[in-house]
Amino acid sequence: MVNRSVVLQSRPSGPLSPGNFSVVDQELPDISEGQILVKNAFASLDPGVRKLLGEPDGYIEPIPIGGVLCAPAVGRVVASKDPNYKEGDIVVGTSFLQEYAAFTPGPMTWKIDSNSKVPLSNHLSALGATGMTAYFGLLEVGQPQPGETVLVSAASGAVGSIVGQIAKIKGCKVVGIAGGAEKCKRLTNEFGFDASIDYRGKSLPELVSAIRSAAPDGIDVFFDNVGGFQLDAALDCMNWKGRIPVCGLVSEYNLEGPPPALTNLFKIVGKVLRIEGFLVFTFSDRIPQALSEMEGWINSGQIAFREEICDGIEAAVPTFLKLFDSSNSGKTMVRL
Amino acid sequence: MVNRSVVLQSRPSGPLSPGNFSVVDQELPDISEGQILVKNAFASLDPGVRKLLGEPDGYIEPIPIGGVLCAPAVGRVVASKDPNYKEGDIVVGTSFLQEYAAFTPGPMTWKIDSNSKVPLSNHLSALGATGMTAYFGLLEVGQPQPGETVLVSAASGAVGSIVGQIAKIKGCKVVGIAGGAEKCKRLTNEFGFDASIDYRGKSLPELVSAIRSAAPDGIDVFFDNVGGFQLDAALDCMNWKGRIPVCGLVSEYNLEGPPPALTNLFKIVGKVLRIEGFLVFTFSDRIPQALSEMEGWINSGQIAFREEICDGIEAAVPTFLKLFDSSNSGKTMVRL
Repeated sequence: MVNRSVVLQSRPSGPLSPGNFSVVDQELPDISEGQILVKNAFASLDPGVRKLLGEPDGYIEPIPIGGVLCAPAVGRVVASKDPNYKEGDIVVGTSFLQEYAAFTPGPMTWKIDSNSKVPLSNHLSALGATGMTAYFGLLEVGQPQPGETVLVSAASGAVGSIVGQIAKIKGCKVVGIAGGAEKCKRLTNEFGFDASIDYRGKSLPELVSAIRSAAPDGIDVFFDNVGGFQLDAALDCMNWKGRIPVCGLVSEYNLEGPPPALTNLFKIVGKVLRIEGFLVFTFSDRIPQALSEMEGWINSGQIAFREEICDGIEAAVPTFLKLFDSSNSGKTMVRL
Repeated sequence: MVNRSVVLQSRPSGPLSPGNFSVVDQELPDISEGQILVKNAFASLDPGVRKLLGEPDGYIEPIPIGGVLCAPAVGRVVASKDPNYKEGDIVVGTSFLQEYAAFTPGPMTWKIDSNSKVPLSNHLSALGATGMTAYFGLLEVGQPQPGETVLVSAASGAVGSIVGQIAKIKGCKVVGIAGGAEKCKRLTNEFGFDASIDYRGKSLPELVSAIRSAAPDGIDVFFDNVGGFQLDAALDCMNWKGRIPVCGLVSEYNLEGPPPALTNLFKIVGKVLRIEGFLVFTFSDRIPQALSEMEGWINSGQIAFREEICDGIEAAVPTFLKLFDSSNSGKTMVRL
């Protein structure tokens, strides 16, 4: 049986291009002891994968040339050499961008309750790593308190839109930064943000004044997906003992040159700020409770979210590349 | 009676120059209810004061033109309208760079036990805000564990040299970065660091390899006084869940242009790093215990430190300016 996979064709230097990837036909993989083979129904397209495409840096193990791209995916177990999984189980897990994937279930793999009524794709968005990233990044790293102001970058995106809605549930004022009038309107109309800011065409001082206007009491938590100039502006607007959970620095992944300097970084001393990177899997032991709380919010209509689904593995790369020009909306995935 | 004071003559843009300051004769200040008048014996010269010399930024209240410079100082109470202080008490506190200072005792003001045998100047160095900054920044913000590796920038300075020695007491491996062979030798010979690195003349990749050679197991805590290129290099060498207490970003205070870009900032996500600014006064309720622990280490010879003392208020400004060209050694202060 043929298994189509997206592989890394060449290492990008600077912006990604379609030629860095190719779709290849491979043999169906064998599974070894402890592994499962999953027929993927949906695979997630995440900007964070960009970090794994570069040269080895002695720390992050990059995807080798010819290697299949990593991707969270949801699908049905078709073979198992792990006693905790059997044929027919529906699983969500850190997997690969291919039709059939063999992998060893890790801390970010779990089974979906067979009584679950939500669409399968939701397990890659609000009930997947995306939703869990928003949940733990905001609540555990950001520690928002009722009445505080939360600023979110890439706020109309899959993670950011959920961050803002959880912050509202927790009694915060919420301001989102996004690119373009349409996304900004969505923040207030669809996701219940208190205010939105379009970063496009703004200089650093202009972005700073837009934040100050939208959040006259200052920012207590800045949930950052972007880095660069948006982080620099936020640093200027942070309140005493503000917290900056860093989910990603998507503006810096695709650069040819160095990122812009942070002219306001020195304010972390005088304002006693904390900037903290996080990865959702470090919270994996608490995912079951978080999923149950999130499902409650979804069912009660307190959390809305979008999914952008493209069809077939040939569409995966063009759709993945769109993540970097800010033209996506909601959690992006491919139906396989 | 004439009271000589160092005042801000003009606001610097870029590097400080002697003309930004002047020594003026003033009337002895009156004290209002709650204040004390202290005849200063020693006043501290701290690079952190640089932050208070710039334009108002809506957050930090800068020293006004014509205003006396702030400085921690130690001296004798000559008049008091605070019931907790009486004439003759010896106090350490956040004060001013002048011969007589009137101020309201705050969280960073305390009385010195009349039985204390250490020289008065020590209460501005190892037993002053400097030592407390090292103590709380390393232990509370950095959370070093036995067996971990601690990297310190400006390591031969007043704060850095104490940070390294406390880290040794706590069972860590300690590497210091300093400028020049003499300071580096002092780190290993005088302060017991395991290794030293001279940052001078090194490119970013060269500094990164020097850190990797000196700390082959990577860096768990980077106590940063400097920022810029040293911070960028350290980010590249940090271990999983590393911590970066930021005491100051002295390389960025005196710049005319923007600071250098942090090309490795994105690693805070993949390595789950925490960068955290701090100010010692937020720990003020725990200073008495910290002072007693520190005095024990000093008396047992586990903490060595240097003091660089200039004489007379006319020497204060030239000595303060030397702090920014890295030619100072140890805690710098002026005897008044």
